[in-house]
Amino acid sequence: MPTAERDALCDSPQLTDLYQLTMLQSYLDQGMQGEAVFEFFVRKIPENRNFLIAAGLEQLLDFLQRAAFSEQELNYLARSGFFKPNLIDYLAQFRFSGTVHAMAEGTVCFSNEPLLRITAPLPEAQLIETRLINLMQLPIMVATKAARCRLAAPDKRLVDFGLRRAHGAEAGLLAARAAYIAGFDGTSNVLAGQRYGMPIMGTMAHSFIQAHDVEAEAFRHFAASQPDNLVLLIDTYDTERGARRVARLADEIGAQGLEIKAVRIDSGELGDEARKVREILDQAGHPEIGILASSSVDEYLIQSLVKRGVPIDGYGIGTSLTTSEDAPFLNCAYKLQEYAGLPRRKRSSGKATWPGRKQLYRYLDDSGLLRYDRLCTEDETVSAGIALLEPVMQNGRRLNPPESLADIRQRVQRELNMLPAHLRDLEHPGSLLLQVSDDLQRLALETDRRFGG
Amino acid sequence: MPTAERDALCDSPQLTDLYQLTMLQSYLDQGMQGEAVFEFFVRKIPENRNFLIAAGLEQLLDFLQRAAFSEQELNYLARSGFFKPNLIDYLAQFRFSGTVHAMAEGTVCFSNEPLLRITAPLPEAQLIETRLINLMQLPIMVATKAARCRLAAPDKRLVDFGLRRAHGAEAGLLAARAAYIAGFDGTSNVLAGQRYGMPIMGTMAHSFIQAHDVEAEAFRHFAASQPDNLVLLIDTYDTERGARRVARLADEIGAQGLEIKAVRIDSGELGDEARKVREILDQAGHPEIGILASSSVDEYLIQSLVKRGVPIDGYGIGTSLTTSEDAPFLNCAYKLQEYAGLPRRKRSSGKATWPGRKQLYRYLDDSGLLRYDRLCTEDETVSAGIALLEPVMQNGRRLNPPESLADIRQRVQRELNMLPAHLRDLEHPGSLLLQVSDDLQRLALETDRRFGG
Repeated sequence: MPTAERDALCDSPQLTDLYQLTMLQSYLDQGMQGEAVFEFFVRKIPENRNFLIAAGLEQLLDFLQRAAFSEQELNYLARSGFFKPNLIDYLAQFRFSGTVHAMAEGTVCFSNEPLLRITAPLPEAQLIETRLINLMQLPIMVATKAARCRLAAPDKRLVDFGLRRAHGAEAGLLAARAAYIAGFDGTSNVLAGQRYGMPIMGTMAHSFIQAHDVEAEAFRHFAASQPDNLVLLIDTYDTERGARRVARLADEIGAQGLEIKAVRIDSGELGDEARKVREILDQAGHPEIGILASSSVDEYLIQSLVKRGVPIDGYGIGTSLTTSEDAPFLNCAYKLQEYAGLPRRKRSSGKATWPGRKQLYRYLDDSGLLRYDRLCTEDETVSAGIALLEPVMQNGRRLNPPESLADIRQRVQRELNMLPAHLRDLEHPGSLLLQVSDDLQRLALETDRRFGG
Repeated sequence: MPTAERDALCDSPQLTDLYQLTMLQSYLDQGMQGEAVFEFFVRKIPENRNFLIAAGLEQLLDFLQRAAFSEQELNYLARSGFFKPNLIDYLAQFRFSGTVHAMAEGTVCFSNEPLLRITAPLPEAQLIETRLINLMQLPIMVATKAARCRLAAPDKRLVDFGLRRAHGAEAGLLAARAAYIAGFDGTSNVLAGQRYGMPIMGTMAHSFIQAHDVEAEAFRHFAASQPDNLVLLIDTYDTERGARRVARLADEIGAQGLEIKAVRIDSGELGDEARKVREILDQAGHPEIGILASSSVDEYLIQSLVKRGVPIDGYGIGTSLTTSEDAPFLNCAYKLQEYAGLPRRKRSSGKATWPGRKQLYRYLDDSGLLRYDRLCTEDETVSAGIALLEPVMQNGRRLNPPESLADIRQRVQRELNMLPAHLRDLEHPGSLLLQVSDDLQRLALETDRRFGG
């Protein structure tokens, strides 16, 4: 498995909120280094999502293994005026030594379900909060958006074109990976191809056409340099004329044994444009040349084009995917559930959580479709049901090598096949029933009696 | 000026779309290395924005100076099957040698206005497209969102709490900087504080309270460790009870000369909660303790709370800021405007551009408010008007040292003061008139006659 190079920004535990460090100062001063248990979950999935796809675990484990403060970082903290030497000494030694339980990447999940549990000395478990949420949120959003695109078009070619509109460098990388595991065919992002070993794909830009004095010459030049990867952009000046030129070029270079794989349309009403282009190519005797469409594509547009039977063979999906445009954040949280052997919970208005270490069980119907999930205490006896949280890191060491992207992709496809119709619906809200076990409900009452301020 | 450490991810020109490199292959094969001019602009600013704040230039110039392919990256490309040795050799030598004209960071700008012009050999100008857009988009969005928050609350303390919900590591950094230049007081993001030399701020989390058996003890511990930075979170169990506890603690530690700066409320209806808390603190004789509010805060909420006269002294603004939640992307583009001495333009349906090298002039009314902008060819004679594009890099070398954040902050405040009422309105659409000079209109017609496919 190719893994990311060591990286000053992405591996830095300094990429955190100041309050994590001021709280650490107090934990150290009070000797509060007992075992803490935190869980990461999504409080409420966005309105226009019926499920989420768990993703981002691999990058999180990588971060937990690499995270260490540099001397420069420690010097900054020492000079900041917020801290005493005991904290700086602690941070200089810091390596994450905790245990992680998690849902496998690619698992379908829902509101209020723990995706991840961290068990570690309180200061460590606290320190990693900010980056943990920062690293997990985007992959979950993008994998979910990509899975929705895949549900809309099971048989079309889907390619991530979204790097330029992703929010910065890491977002572009994380999004490319998340889209691929959720069923995309590849990405235009070259660094993602290199780092994650996933297929890279591309066409040409309008500027390439414009830099030539004549469009047909641009096509010919590109064909000469990219004979095995020939997708031509035809809408720079006039889409139909562009299509006719491509057909003529196909005749011309076909004689040399070369083949034009597809044309790309990047503007106008994609359905109408595609029909006209398909007709031109077919009448010119080139049914083998495919049509790729881009420009403001998302799962809603794909679904409507597919339903209309529009002759588009593949989609380049950019902004809507990498920014998760219609749901650009998750109401997600990482909350303390136990400290020093006692379950705890937050009771803030609208933000209460279930206390203690938990396990999530999944129940299927006879045809293998999702029926309901059940949230339980970790140690209660449960008959049947599939336990979704598994240990993946112990005492700071990974228990398994990274999963291959191919394996995660297969899991996503299996999981999507388990969705009943109301959860596959892209346009109407739906959700899976989450039961809460009697033991867990009792524990919440006990916890409120014990604490509660 | 502190500058970012060298960074394998953020400095990599491999973070690009595959098509940039396949086009480069063809440019090299055809000897197309003439001078190209590209401009970066926002086609149409989002519906719920009346202006944008130019931002991100510093990071872009930094990238242009550092960008170089590593051996590992070149090896990957050589093995990818897309390229010939002449391209790999070219990339091995690649350093950006072009010229950049740009609007100063912090300038107010509008639809269809060039924020940036790149003049460079075609392959270089093309190669940088993807990362240029990726680096510029987010800072513009976040600076704009932050400026709107500042307009809503000119006198309140505004702090960026958004790292955890930002889209990855770099987004968190870029957002913290963009919010600060647009008028925020600081960030919770420690690495942003270190890298950019900006103020870091923080409070405490619910987990800190929960990790203690008794809330009052948590407050006392934090006071002991953070005597100079004492902001206490009071809504973990019961906000009003929390406020009364803080008042008692203030009496207790006041005797030792310590001071509680503020309480934080992070749930419930913030206006009502703040009024109740203010009353409790005042009645207990502690009008000096401020109130900081967080939880789903954005400019709309701030404006309504400020209008209601709610006693909140500062806001922690997270998700809505760093994801630019209600406008999470910009319809922005980087387009070829000239190649080999000839102006060019794209004419795709709904995406046409003005050709050639351009300058943007700004006109104010007698009271110093924005009146209109005028888009001209670079070399036409213009009387009056402020030219907004200035040279900032020549032949790959920066012409000036980085601007200080303080200077950019001041510019933003001056620019916001130049907004007429309809552009300051947060809830109703508005825009500045953009005139297009006769020369530029003629040039567009000529260009269409010359090219046009």
